[in-house]
Amino acid sequence: MNKKATYNEISTLSNVSIATISRFMNKPFSVKKETREKILEAMQKLGMDSSFIDNKKSIENNVIIFNIPSLINPIYSEIIAGAKDCANRNRYSLLISEDVINERSINNFIDMLKTSNAAGLITTNIIPTNLLEEINNVVPVIQCGEHNTALSLPYVSIDDIQASKKAVDYLISLGRRKIAILNGPLEYKYAKDRLIGYQQSLISADIPLDYNLICEIPKINYDIACATCHQLINRKNRPDAIFAVSDIYAIAAIKTIKQNHLNVPNDIAVIGFDNIFLTYMTSPTITSVSQPKYQLGIYSCSMLIQRINKEESPLESMKLETEIIIRESTANWLKSI
Amino acid sequence: MNKKATYNEISTLSNVSIATISRFMNKPFSVKKETREKILEAMQKLGMDSSFIDNKKSIENNVIIFNIPSLINPIYSEIIAGAKDCANRNRYSLLISEDVINERSINNFIDMLKTSNAAGLITTNIIPTNLLEEINNVVPVIQCGEHNTALSLPYVSIDDIQASKKAVDYLISLGRRKIAILNGPLEYKYAKDRLIGYQQSLISADIPLDYNLICEIPKINYDIACATCHQLINRKNRPDAIFAVSDIYAIAAIKTIKQNHLNVPNDIAVIGFDNIFLTYMTSPTITSVSQPKYQLGIYSCSMLIQRINKEESPLESMKLETEIIIRESTANWLKSI
Repeated sequence: MNKKATYNEISTLSNVSIATISRFMNKPFSVKKETREKILEAMQKLGMDSSFIDNKKSIENNVIIFNIPSLINPIYSEIIAGAKDCANRNRYSLLISEDVINERSINNFIDMLKTSNAAGLITTNIIPTNLLEEINNVVPVIQCGEHNTALSLPYVSIDDIQASKKAVDYLISLGRRKIAILNGPLEYKYAKDRLIGYQQSLISADIPLDYNLICEIPKINYDIACATCHQLINRKNRPDAIFAVSDIYAIAAIKTIKQNHLNVPNDIAVIGFDNIFLTYMTSPTITSVSQPKYQLGIYSCSMLIQRINKEESPLESMKLETEIIIRESTANWLKSI
Repeated sequence: MNKKATYNEISTLSNVSIATISRFMNKPFSVKKETREKILEAMQKLGMDSSFIDNKKSIENNVIIFNIPSLINPIYSEIIAGAKDCANRNRYSLLISEDVINERSINNFIDMLKTSNAAGLITTNIIPTNLLEEINNVVPVIQCGEHNTALSLPYVSIDDIQASKKAVDYLISLGRRKIAILNGPLEYKYAKDRLIGYQQSLISADIPLDYNLICEIPKINYDIACATCHQLINRKNRPDAIFAVSDIYAIAAIKTIKQNHLNVPNDIAVIGFDNIFLTYMTSPTITSVSQPKYQLGIYSCSMLIQRINKEESPLESMKLETEIIIRESTANWLKSI
């Protein structure tokens, strides 16, 4: 077939430029939907076969972007491993973007999505509603873990209230009554929810809330956590247990407690969150709330692929179960060295 | 200007299809060099302005891929931070690929580079020569840290022989004579070089080599390192110092030594490598050889951008300096808890 003549015919009939028609032939989905329909109508009228487009769809735009706020927190590696396995099974590549998304960075972020031909985005970032909407207009988005519920976009997460309640219930079951929480910044949904779970647990056990035991640490940072913990355990009425909403905080707590010549868990029991690989490398090893990280990755990626393929059935958000992994930092019957 | 007519003219004169000309107009560098030259020649003959291409160049293909073998090793986060800062300053986005590159994965990897419009690649992976060549034919490559010297492609790295010699010299300066090395797999250049440095140091100090003290651990894995270390310290003639070529190995060594009721550093001093953030979270804190991680990232990215821009001056590979950060695992005069 003579391409030049054909493009001319389609162009005349559809009133779409030859350049756009050529782009459509190479990358059908890089052309606006209306334009695509005009071209397809013209092709049909000319008796041309347009079935190649369905094949194109499956071989192009095969990159999925997994966006995280920071590489330093080891929790992401296992979530990404799950997402990657799911992506590769479905013939997608997975690339990781370490980017915070805000008013300042949004334009570059969207440029990156376009330049890299991203088919979809998984994000573990907290994203303001207007920016999330803007991104979702460019590519399908699935939120993983931290999520904004304003747009009713689908997400995969854990039930932070339940997970937190379970952790504090466990500390209470050990006979602890003065339980502190080392929490993250309350602008995060997870931090809000874990505070609620903490409070619910204490209320159920008739333990009065002591606001001096509630610490909000402005970011996931080891040094700030050490300083906060130092103040906490040098109060007149020091806690007998600490619920740390991140294992990094738990490591900081244990280090600080030991530096103050107190014993973990005898004087102060410590429970962390995320069950990152460091929890069994420290002395004592760290009891932790385990998120199903690999599954979070798998489910968020498979939901994203459903959205990319525009499958009919409406997507339901998911909440996965957590478990408590008991180690030396709460259990003095486990040998501590 | 009437695009359709113009494209027809260029096509006739250059003998290049309209579709390709249209692609060239949108993304000049997605078209082969020869074809590009044919089109440009025709445009010149027709008296057309082709200066827009230089502008196109700066706004397209603005993604740099940073390839690492695994997210789990925390060393990469700081190298990537350096590369990202350099990329962003030069108006590139940086995406991270966590991919091992071998005969099985090479096709998918190259597809990913093409689909995502990568302008260039920085890799910390060990890549066989033929595959490295194949990749370098698609995009400019800079090797960072681990590198293959067969193709004389530019790299940024540390001097592993010198760094290793420095570490062992330091242990000898503390009066240690029975120094073990926990090394990585010898297929890696860094492992070969660090073994050479270890041997050079012992030879300089007239300490005879004891092959029982040389341990090769098949991958950077905490559990395997613990098992290896357990065997090592339960030998009749146990070491009085361990040089671990990775901080993860050092953490494993310290844990195992403590479990065997020995003291670090009094019975066995331990030095790690990479100075990852975990080294000051453990008890005792860990002495470590510090790579200039952020600088490795900066330099590799700025060299890549030079290659992308095809700057005239030939690129020289670089070797950056390391430092030893002294902490409790080798220094009993630092308070150990």
